[in-house]
Amino acid sequence: MNHRPLAWLRTLRLDPPSSSDKTADMDRLRKALQQAGYPRVSFPLSVMRRLPDELRGKGFELTVVLGQTEDGVRVIDISREKVYGLALDIGSTNIEASLFDLLSGSRLDQRSGENPQLPFGADVLTRVQRSMMGEAEELVRGLRLGVNRLIDTLCAGNHLAAEDIAAVSVAGNTIMSHFFLGLSVDNIPVSPYVPAVNGPVFTTGREAGLNVNGEALVYVFPNAGSYVGGDIISGILHAGIHREEEPVLFIDVGTNVEITLGCRDWIMSGAGAAGPALEGGVAGIGKKADPGTISKVRIGRAGLGIDLDVINDGEPTGICGSGLIDLISEMFSAGLIDQSGKFTGKGEGFLEQDGKRRYVIYGNGKDGLAISEPEIRNFLLSKAAMFSFLYVFVKSVGLTFRDIRKIYVAGALGCGIDPESAVNIGMLPDIPRERFVLIGNSSLSGAELLLLDRGLLDEVAKVAAMITYREMNEDAELMSVLQGALFIPHTQPELLRGG
Amino acid sequence: MNHRPLAWLRTLRLDPPSSSDKTADMDRLRKALQQAGYPRVSFPLSVMRRLPDELRGKGFELTVVLGQTEDGVRVIDISREKVYGLALDIGSTNIEASLFDLLSGSRLDQRSGENPQLPFGADVLTRVQRSMMGEAEELVRGLRLGVNRLIDTLCAGNHLAAEDIAAVSVAGNTIMSHFFLGLSVDNIPVSPYVPAVNGPVFTTGREAGLNVNGEALVYVFPNAGSYVGGDIISGILHAGIHREEEPVLFIDVGTNVEITLGCRDWIMSGAGAAGPALEGGVAGIGKKADPGTISKVRIGRAGLGIDLDVINDGEPTGICGSGLIDLISEMFSAGLIDQSGKFTGKGEGFLEQDGKRRYVIYGNGKDGLAISEPEIRNFLLSKAAMFSFLYVFVKSVGLTFRDIRKIYVAGALGCGIDPESAVNIGMLPDIPRERFVLIGNSSLSGAELLLLDRGLLDEVAKVAAMITYREMNEDAELMSVLQGALFIPHTQPELLRGG
Repeated sequence: MNHRPLAWLRTLRLDPPSSSDKTADMDRLRKALQQAGYPRVSFPLSVMRRLPDELRGKGFELTVVLGQTEDGVRVIDISREKVYGLALDIGSTNIEASLFDLLSGSRLDQRSGENPQLPFGADVLTRVQRSMMGEAEELVRGLRLGVNRLIDTLCAGNHLAAEDIAAVSVAGNTIMSHFFLGLSVDNIPVSPYVPAVNGPVFTTGREAGLNVNGEALVYVFPNAGSYVGGDIISGILHAGIHREEEPVLFIDVGTNVEITLGCRDWIMSGAGAAGPALEGGVAGIGKKADPGTISKVRIGRAGLGIDLDVINDGEPTGICGSGLIDLISEMFSAGLIDQSGKFTGKGEGFLEQDGKRRYVIYGNGKDGLAISEPEIRNFLLSKAAMFSFLYVFVKSVGLTFRDIRKIYVAGALGCGIDPESAVNIGMLPDIPRERFVLIGNSSLSGAELLLLDRGLLDEVAKVAAMITYREMNEDAELMSVLQGALFIPHTQPELLRGG
Repeated sequence: MNHRPLAWLRTLRLDPPSSSDKTADMDRLRKALQQAGYPRVSFPLSVMRRLPDELRGKGFELTVVLGQTEDGVRVIDISREKVYGLALDIGSTNIEASLFDLLSGSRLDQRSGENPQLPFGADVLTRVQRSMMGEAEELVRGLRLGVNRLIDTLCAGNHLAAEDIAAVSVAGNTIMSHFFLGLSVDNIPVSPYVPAVNGPVFTTGREAGLNVNGEALVYVFPNAGSYVGGDIISGILHAGIHREEEPVLFIDVGTNVEITLGCRDWIMSGAGAAGPALEGGVAGIGKKADPGTISKVRIGRAGLGIDLDVINDGEPTGICGSGLIDLISEMFSAGLIDQSGKFTGKGEGFLEQDGKRRYVIYGNGKDGLAISEPEIRNFLLSKAAMFSFLYVFVKSVGLTFRDIRKIYVAGALGCGIDPESAVNIGMLPDIPRERFVLIGNSSLSGAELLLLDRGLLDEVAKVAAMITYREMNEDAELMSVLQGALFIPHTQPELLRGG
């Protein structure tokens, strides 16, 4: 990776003024920057105001923090020893932030927090509706507060001042990017579904209201439309889809299933609602993949005995998406559930409670973790939606699963999903397992890449322009594939291998 | 004059979005601006935030206020019917402001006020010293307050809101420009006399702390050095010296005498302290040229009878610079004073009071206006300084007064000076009278020109780069010429005609 961060430091040794060289301070600095290869540099007044004292205090050796803007280079600050940057992923559920030392390019810290908009509605569209009904300011302020809390924590934990942070790269879906920038989301859910902005936004810490240097360069990834946001573009950047010779598939599973298919010649994206099940939202025991959640499940032959992996070990408090996929796959393989997800009555570990039959995963029924039939069917609905989206999507461009060189799995499932389990239940296609690549929070990773390499700005613009959006819910075949996908693995298992 | 103001209005008819054109609002606007001939336009976040509602409220017909920046064009505001601009002259003594309708190019109003820094010292260098001794913030805040009061008055008087003002062009001497921008003046009075900035400054209303649109384009004229400020460059622009084929002289008389000599091939500037006499600072009766001050004086043959012109008529309260020049010239012609400025004892209208002899100009001695011998000699010192600066300056480039095609007289004297009187007392050279051109506050006029024609930005940069500064007080011949110039018109009258 090229180390050309969004903000960087330049040390300049200026000739001190003399009776034969009365060039003014700013003009002197401008000239030195020109000689250093920056022909056009803009300056905030705040820097001009401090320049004379800083120059003389430092014997006319000055460090200048430079930042890449849309059109050129801007002076962000002067007289700093270090430059720090933040990569942000603004998810509907979680906000994740990485802190970087931009001089070395090394990641110093990473934190995440809940999106404070959650109380306005877990579903993004609910938030948009509330915004349209007069709560826009609260939603924007809430999100900003959450982001700033995360920034404050990162600064405090690493002994930095807000002013130390000179660059921020931000990826999020279209609606989150809008909320982050305080832009109107009113027209996104209404035909013809037009965002306030798609192109990338370059702004400053002050304009964006962030607890960073007021002049900091803030870059927000472009969107490719209302339904293909900067998070996907950032993920594509990270996965490198736009550089592949042969088609690859990129799946980001969050509240929605976002699918991208493409290579260096074309990229097509689509999204569909898959329900919250896959992100750990099924039933009471579903949790996002935090310490204490079950991430892997193995059930003994004939349904005897259960073996769990818990993130960071300890007492399990819930089960995350990948654990759930394991669980269903193992229950099916062990014969505890049939193809439709119904309990077969075989195996041990079941419990009758409040008139409902449940399969116990951990502890005793009352205080422990257990799953019921309706919860399993709820999960199967999500997996069916996901598979049918994939199938219809790939088929729509005249390809089959066999043509896909790689499948990148990002998002909540991208941390620990076992492709074997996912294929076993018919959620992911049955292709050679080595073609599956788990890439975790690729939106954050892409934002990190860009923070560390401004040369990628053009690449991001190219990717954004390449993407075609495909409306998936309008496909006629979708419903018939989905009906079969409600069963494990599918009523037509050959579809899993390519269709 | 070309009407291409610093900020202007553009009405754009955008195609409304449709299912076949889902371009986002900002991208749509950007594209329309590209088609209108603005390939690179930057946008503040504040505009992006309002754009979706404004577009839909106006049926996708949008007016955009554009402003010229250093590198390109910036959107200042949207959905405005009118665009207003301010030209500011920040003088050490007075601040003058003109308000323009930038659509029609017509001047709506003009106001002036005292520079609130005056209590810190009438002399600019005193203010610099006090700034260096810890009062920088008070000086900057004071000036800003004065400018904002003037802006508020102009807005209120013309029923405008602060946001209506989209462009401000500012001219002032180097020190005043620095105070205006909140830049350090600490190094200006100390060898090697280096300002914080000479190049022009493009900033915003918000950064400059002005009561105008926060995104307004604020342009501050460049300086050519510590002693040749933006006010002179602005004056040169107004007089058009840089376009003349043959040498012309430009004299701006304020607290200092600023002299510029040049043509399209070269420009030389210099300044010297001439004392406050010429600006109306002599004795108790001196006043700046406001309503109620005497601007013209005629004395009858043999010193009998006196005839006065009062600005706006009425009871005179003082005498301005041009009136004073008239008065001395007339007193000399009538034989009331001799060559050295001493009372000859001839003529009427003298009064003995507190042991001092005074010549009564108006009213009775006690409550009226009268002038004493020391005051006349004080005036003669100023006129001597001024003439000798002119003489030495012109001679230093190998020219004589005969070679000068035009003499522009700007500043306090530029409003109403009678060249005949000025030549008569030996203040201005004895060249054909039609070569004198009175141009008033040329610093303000130049700022007005630029406000109305952004095409002049390059011309200003060219002028600033052309100017050579000449240190006048170091000239050996100066003192000998000055000694003779203390007499009326001069001990060597041939010097007045070219030397």
